[in-house]
Amino acid sequence: MSTEPPEAGHGYIQSKDAYLARLRRIEGQARGLQRMVEEEKYCIDILTQVSAMTKALQAVALGLLEDHISHCVVNAAAAGDHAEAEAKIAEASNAIARLVRS
Amino acid sequence: MSTEPPEAGHGYIQSKDAYLARLRRIEGQARGLQRMVEEEKYCIDILTQVSAMTKALQAVALGLLEDHISHCVVNAAAAGDHAEAEAKIAEASNAIARLVRS
Amino acid sequence: MSTEPPEAGHGYIQSKDAYLARLRRIEGQARGLQRMVEEEKYCIDILTQVSAMTKALQAVALGLLEDHISHCVVNAAAAGDHAEAEAKIAEASNAIARLVRS
Amino acid sequence: MSTEPPEAGHGYIQSKDAYLARLRRIEGQARGLQRMVEEEKYCIDILTQVSAMTKALQAVALGLLEDHISHCVVNAAAAGDHAEAEAKIAEASNAIARLVRS
Repeated sequence: MSTEPPEAGHGYIQSKDAYLARLRRIEGQARGLQRMVEEEKYCIDILTQVSAMTKALQAVALGLLEDHISHCVVNAAAAGDHAEAEAKIAEASNAIARLVRS
Repeated sequence: MSTEPPEAGHGYIQSKDAYLARLRRIEGQARGLQRMVEEEKYCIDILTQVSAMTKALQAVALGLLEDHISHCVVNAAAAGDHAEAEAKIAEASNAIARLVRS
Repeated sequence: MSTEPPEAGHGYIQSKDAYLARLRRIEGQARGLQRMVEEEKYCIDILTQVSAMTKALQAVALGLLEDHISHCVVNAAAAGDHAEAEAKIAEASNAIARLVRS
Repeated sequence: MSTEPPEAGHGYIQSKDAYLARLRRIEGQARGLQRMVEEEKYCIDILTQVSAMTKALQAVALGLLEDHISHCVVNAAAAGDHAEAEAKIAEASNAIARLVRS
């Protein structure tokens, strides 16, 4: 599906623990939302939490994207592999489009 | 913070189980993302999952918002409580603005 | 296509001039962007202007939506026309969904 | 404000006419919206047009962004100018964040 190189070594790896911590917090937000629905909290207060969780998710996405461009795209370009750089950029652009529209 | 009436009985209550099921699925997506980072999956594939999770969250938000307008706003309006209806609409509009910007 | 009542009298009418002024400013932003492309300005600076214009457009949309709920939805609910109120809310919800996803 | 190099030669230049045509169409949409408000069209129909115009604007932004990464970022990386590539990526990431949030 993706053009992932087999050797990999993705840009985000160096901050893997930070991403895991952020995703655990987001998982906690999903559980908090269930508790709010369970306790029949006011819908507007639930919506406020949904917005906060969406923002946290988008911040993760923006971080991953920047890491991707800094590593995968730049490495391909620095190696003079034009076709590979183009493929990476097309992938990144599609990912950005999905983010902007989601 | 919110203008929640004490007696409550919020619009979404009648589909509480459906919302809980959707939020549990979203919690599962948050755990799936942690697994992907743990296993050092390709960043673009992780981003695809983040977009899917964001879309699922926004669908929950849109459902809650429609329920809110259908119940809280319409009830206040039908009861002729103009000030209450206005307060509910202002709250809903702020929630919509946060959603659109998040 | 829409369930517009023939007699109309839409919510936004009372601030028609304000909406026209905002839309004229947005039209001006579209012309400003053409000038920037014409003069081959830096892409990031153009993108900053595109974001500003998108925000201005969304503010217009949020205003129209609030006016719609305050008038069309509330009037139908206050008149006890449940079917009409439901139809208006469904329309509004679809419009909100399009906004959130655009 | 931006790190624009003086010699420039931006990525989007080669499709300048296509961008101008798209922006002229967007300007036309802004005028169409004014006509709809002038003629007091139904708010939901106006909102549909606002969403279409927002989508058109975002498509322009996504195109500019892809061109920027393909040219400015890749050229800096290919030239081995690591600091310049990093600066370009930081700018692009900020532009993406503004787009995602707008």
